[in-house]
Amino acid sequence: MTAANHKTACVIIIGNEILTGRTQDANLAYIGKSLMDVGIKLFQARVIPDIEDEIIKTINECRKAYDYVFTTGGIGPTHDDITAECVAKAFGRPFGLNKEAYSRLIKHYGGEEHINEGRRRMALMPEGVGLINNPVSTAPGFFIENVYVMAGVPKIAQAMMDGIIPTLQGGPPIKSRTVNCLVPESKIAAELRAIAEKFSDLDIGSYPYFRLGGFGLSLVVRGSDMPRVDAAIEALCALISAHGDSPVLPEA
Amino acid sequence: MTAANHKTACVIIIGNEILTGRTQDANLAYIGKSLMDVGIKLFQARVIPDIEDEIIKTINECRKAYDYVFTTGGIGPTHDDITAECVAKAFGRPFGLNKEAYSRLIKHYGGEEHINEGRRRMALMPEGVGLINNPVSTAPGFFIENVYVMAGVPKIAQAMMDGIIPTLQGGPPIKSRTVNCLVPESKIAAELRAIAEKFSDLDIGSYPYFRLGGFGLSLVVRGSDMPRVDAAIEALCALISAHGDSPVLPEA
Repeated sequence: MTAANHKTACVIIIGNEILTGRTQDANLAYIGKSLMDVGIKLFQARVIPDIEDEIIKTINECRKAYDYVFTTGGIGPTHDDITAECVAKAFGRPFGLNKEAYSRLIKHYGGEEHINEGRRRMALMPEGVGLINNPVSTAPGFFIENVYVMAGVPKIAQAMMDGIIPTLQGGPPIKSRTVNCLVPESKIAAELRAIAEKFSDLDIGSYPYFRLGGFGLSLVVRGSDMPRVDAAIEALCALISAHGDSPVLPEA
Repeated sequence: MTAANHKTACVIIIGNEILTGRTQDANLAYIGKSLMDVGIKLFQARVIPDIEDEIIKTINECRKAYDYVFTTGGIGPTHDDITAECVAKAFGRPFGLNKEAYSRLIKHYGGEEHINEGRRRMALMPEGVGLINNPVSTAPGFFIENVYVMAGVPKIAQAMMDGIIPTLQGGPPIKSRTVNCLVPESKIAAELRAIAEKFSDLDIGSYPYFRLGGFGLSLVVRGSDMPRVDAAIEALCALISAHGDSPVLPEA
């Protein structure tokens, strides 16, 4: 994964439920793929617990290290939703009612008389943020400088990401092509290395998998220069054929 | 997530394929759950790319910060499998052929004449490690001090974890009980906070979900003191009933 010409991003997944294995994260892959479309490389992800100090420290570390930071989780109405307040502390900004977010909630719930403490909590944000639309359940996320704060529920997080993507300053899309085969990866490792060195401007990954009780192998090429990606795939197909197997191109 | 009496762990998931969204991680939840059974709290997870400097830096940071570190990915036979060598560099130890690992591979492949460069590569390890058994495809993982280096393929990673778990020095198991309901979390947020404060020795999480087109809510209690966990679940059931809904106990 050559960071070379691409902007970088980090995802911070906030929530004990992911670390205890209660909940399987379903946002990281979606965010990673979405960012590739706009030429941004997801360079790291961290999963951290609902602990104030951990959240503040991680946000401050990551916002300095990467061009973009995306957080998921911890912006709901309950006691364990502390992300927004932690972001305010990380940026040293006052934390209070965001008028636009509050008015969206009032409209959604049909009047201020339906806004209880929990619902009001979802409009508390650091001062001076921009809102991230939530087409699923209204309560918005927000962004502040290069940090985007999103919900954890996958349906909401993904809708928020869809709204954010067109606003990001990325680069040429990072494309990916795959060729599958049944050759054991240890058998082609040396030749594969030679191809990876020849195409060192690209990422070439080798991913064995189990299917129908046997091993298979996916070879994946990633890069922004499509003719180069195609050339690398061609070289991989020739390698597979030379080992007596038939390359399978899922996208072809 | 009160770290209080529990040892802590960190998982490092190594692989571009997770960050690009090509592959959905399937190991983190399994590791998190397994560790709870032996009273170890998974405190953080990081997903990092196949880049030497990143791997070395992350391993050195995490092995100092947590009681246990588990890595997945990057120990296969190909050019993008650089984890073992990076671990050697992180610990400042020589990197070379592990005789026991090599003899297991020779036996598995039916003689040294079947060991090519790629297969031999899977026996290269830092000096002085212990081996982690691989009942699925033989090539072992290894551990060095508090760092456990495992495969990325879920079937193999999980089998390795099963072998490691009984060897760890943990504490009383961390148990989890859940009660489900249909009350909106914003409606009970204030009372839920009061219960969480009353049971501050436990973790109480509130997780909304979508099902059949509607929202539901899971309230989860985690801790090592089962009578306390049961008492908290009882309090949550009473709260749900007071809001006119019926608590659903999946484990009951």
